[in-house]
Amino acid sequence: MSFYSQGPHTYKVPFTLHAENRQRFFEAFNTEAKPTDAEAIVLQGGKQQSQYDTDRELLFRQESYFHYLYGVKEPDCYAVLIPVIKLSVLLIPRLPQEYAVWMGEIKAPQFFKEHYLVDEVMYVDELASFLKSKGIAKIHVIHGVNSDSGSSSPETSFDGMTDFQVEKGVLYPILTECRVIKSPEEIKLLRYVNKVSSDAHKYVMRNCKVGMMEYQLESMFLHHVYTFGGCRHVSYTCICPNGHQTAVLHYGHAGAPNDRVIDEGTMLLLDMGAEYHCYGSDITCSYPVSGKFTEDQKHVYEAVLAAVDAVKAAMKPGVSWVDMHLLAESVIIEHLLRMNLIQNGTVQELQDECIGALFFPHGLGHLLGLDVHDVGGYPSCGPPRESRPGLRSLRTARSLKAGMFLTIEPGLYFIPASLEPAFKCPNKSKYLNEPLLRQFFSFGGVRIEEDVIVTDDGIETLTQVPRTVKEIEEWMAGRD
Amino acid sequence: MSFYSQGPHTYKVPFTLHAENRQRFFEAFNTEAKPTDAEAIVLQGGKQQSQYDTDRELLFRQESYFHYLYGVKEPDCYAVLIPVIKLSVLLIPRLPQEYAVWMGEIKAPQFFKEHYLVDEVMYVDELASFLKSKGIAKIHVIHGVNSDSGSSSPETSFDGMTDFQVEKGVLYPILTECRVIKSPEEIKLLRYVNKVSSDAHKYVMRNCKVGMMEYQLESMFLHHVYTFGGCRHVSYTCICPNGHQTAVLHYGHAGAPNDRVIDEGTMLLLDMGAEYHCYGSDITCSYPVSGKFTEDQKHVYEAVLAAVDAVKAAMKPGVSWVDMHLLAESVIIEHLLRMNLIQNGTVQELQDECIGALFFPHGLGHLLGLDVHDVGGYPSCGPPRESRPGLRSLRTARSLKAGMFLTIEPGLYFIPASLEPAFKCPNKSKYLNEPLLRQFFSFGGVRIEEDVIVTDDGIETLTQVPRTVKEIEEWMAGRD
Ligand SMILES: [Mn+2]
Ligand SMILES: [Mn+2]
Repeated sequence: MSFYSQGPHTYKVPFTLHAENRQRFFEAFNTEAKPTDAEAIVLQGGKQQSQYDTDRELLFRQESYFHYLYGVKEPDCYAVLIPVIKLSVLLIPRLPQEYAVWMGEIKAPQFFKEHYLVDEVMYVDELASFLKSKGIAKIHVIHGVNSDSGSSSPETSFDGMTDFQVEKGVLYPILTECRVIKSPEEIKLLRYVNKVSSDAHKYVMRNCKVGMMEYQLESMFLHHVYTFGGCRHVSYTCICPNGHQTAVLHYGHAGAPNDRVIDEGTMLLLDMGAEYHCYGSDITCSYPVSGKFTEDQKHVYEAVLAAVDAVKAAMKPGVSWVDMHLLAESVIIEHLLRMNLIQNGTVQELQDECIGALFFPHGLGHLLGLDVHDVGGYPSCGPPRESRPGLRSLRTARSLKAGMFLTIEPGLYFIPASLEPAFKCPNKSKYLNEPLLRQFFSFGGVRIEEDVIVTDDGIETLTQVPRTVKEIEEWMAGRD
Repeated sequence: MSFYSQGPHTYKVPFTLHAENRQRFFEAFNTEAKPTDAEAIVLQGGKQQSQYDTDRELLFRQESYFHYLYGVKEPDCYAVLIPVIKLSVLLIPRLPQEYAVWMGEIKAPQFFKEHYLVDEVMYVDELASFLKSKGIAKIHVIHGVNSDSGSSSPETSFDGMTDFQVEKGVLYPILTECRVIKSPEEIKLLRYVNKVSSDAHKYVMRNCKVGMMEYQLESMFLHHVYTFGGCRHVSYTCICPNGHQTAVLHYGHAGAPNDRVIDEGTMLLLDMGAEYHCYGSDITCSYPVSGKFTEDQKHVYEAVLAAVDAVKAAMKPGVSWVDMHLLAESVIIEHLLRMNLIQNGTVQELQDECIGALFFPHGLGHLLGLDVHDVGGYPSCGPPRESRPGLRSLRTARSLKAGMFLTIEPGLYFIPASLEPAFKCPNKSKYLNEPLLRQFFSFGGVRIEEDVIVTDDGIETLTQVPRTVKEIEEWMAGRD
């Protein structure tokens, strides 16, 4: 058997996972596209890139569609799949003899064939002639727009491509849909990487201290998932704000690089997830650096946790993700009313007036897998994106299916850039307790994020970290 | 005063460093290009990029020429410099109001002006109209080929660019040459990042153990330089082989990702360097994981160390880097003769027959700074690249000048891909003790790498790690 592994203490991913992915893809493609035996699929793997014009290589990460079907860690490969005969070919770059001196042993095609469990391996420069030898006249390539980024997929190109009829409209939606439903082997791997990330979150939770820099928690997390989990990559840049910056949803980027001191009495919001063999996780923990919640911190936290719990209890196949978002939002509104932060309306009225989205502006959660915001959120046949605040940020509006892997991540934030304009707007301000809300501007916000698989009759929660106020306080006090 | 800093325990880089860089650049440009008052320089900063077509942002790292002049950590900026009046302008992207919710506070131009010590700050969309308001007709942009990668610099482009005469031939060599000689402020910063990297190497040296995975040493290093030095980036992917893979010069890449177990009795070769405020370091330590050198390990190691010491003793302004490479090579040949690994010739004969390059195939060292293989190695007016094995891999053939920052990194490797063909070649094989050399194939190799500044009469060594066999053994045994 052939595996991807990062050593004896890490998970062994069998390459049969990808062989099975290819089989599922062949079934779907043959059913939906009804190809002739003169048709093939050509995929281009990720290219090794350098930083600007220098010779400094960026850490390579395989392109996700390619990885889904092949699981190949090496850059600059191609793939050919012939659907009618279910033939899988991997094409590797022909390396110069010098490579052996600078980069290491040059492995023969036979090695790749046995390692990656493909039918044939050849060199990239043989691509066009191989297609011709098989009587291929038409090739299908990836072509589509990612619904999260709005960016187009990279164009496939290879020497001799102009000799073939190129079909761009068929492959993308079929392959995308394959990625949406996770297989049993994929789920095992996702359990592993979620466990690795959960353990690292727990470690950070116990070891954070007032006076540390936010990036020192990022570093702790990265070190933990790499050392103990073999995860060289994370699914996204770590988001590690404390204090009022916890209300900055995508903190951690170049302009706000987790570079503030952690102050006494503040909340931390740590959104960090590791990636193993390109499969990701996406977990957020929020807690007071002191290890002890104040009354305010507890109320805000428990509002968000109640939203998580309500959604988890309601999730199962057939349920609409839009409804789940609205459910979470209504729970948060309920709690805000109870805290007297909002007023003068029922939960329904406040929801209808979009008061919830002032405090919870992002979507409830998203598909997750090879990409942190995984593909397939808005298929052409599926429900379109809604326009209401909150809902318009949802990364999918689909109904749940068994095998979908999603995050549940409601949040409750006090964002000046969101509330200041609302205070000035009569339709909104009448619902807002402005003086009290202003006192929460220094609070920031709370987000709780867990990763769950939809099962036949509910969900399986993969994230395992202390979640209730009591659990967190016990854990941070050093008790298990 | 305005600084870049990663918190109280880290170095404060004054932004006057970049103001001084701009002044030095203005002097050089005005002297060499003799611009009129209708000429300006336009630079495009690094762009925030995403992974393939997804919305996963890659960790941003500023483009080096832009960083040299401005030291700006934010992506998507531009710069205008008007040399005749020595005016420095920074142009920042105009961010949508939504940015405040997702990414954090939108800082006003005034903030950037005071923080980065520039004359004026405006929005990128004002670039063309600003140039016109200043009567600029001709703009100079970066255009050149990096002598290490062979890649061309990214093309500058902005809205309205076609209204100006664009000159590509003047700026690149002048700005490149400015980067070659480090200023006193730059040297202070380079001392810091070298100290941070040295300390992390020392930590790894003491904490490595048989049975660990190679990447666990990489992780230890990354964690140490980030936590204690505030270094979010490293200058290059960590190279962490053990055993025979120590002979793979660029180990650590996607195809050989530091993923082997560290075996008993092997040598480690750890080539790792942190980067702070985009200024880098590049350090290699080689030592036995056991903490105790065998006789063979000691002989090979001391051959390389003797080469380092010989070069350090000879370096000063005016000395040719080609001569330094040949000096290091001759010391290594001398030691190989003493070990009976090569034979039947004097040092000079063996060097003339290119026997040294079989064991030491890469260059002695390279310029270092904002890029790990820094620019300026082969200026058009300078000595060209030589064609001999060894010398053809040298990243510069220049004579030393005070203020140059270089690595000294001789190595001695037993590389099957290099020696096997030599055994078959009569002109080479007569000098090689094949049976004894074959016994060293499992050894791999040794590299020692230090970073030095050329001073007025010699060098200053910035790298501070245990170097002699005795120092390493003492340090690994826990003694200081
Ligand atoms: Mn998420
Ligand atoms: Mn180097």
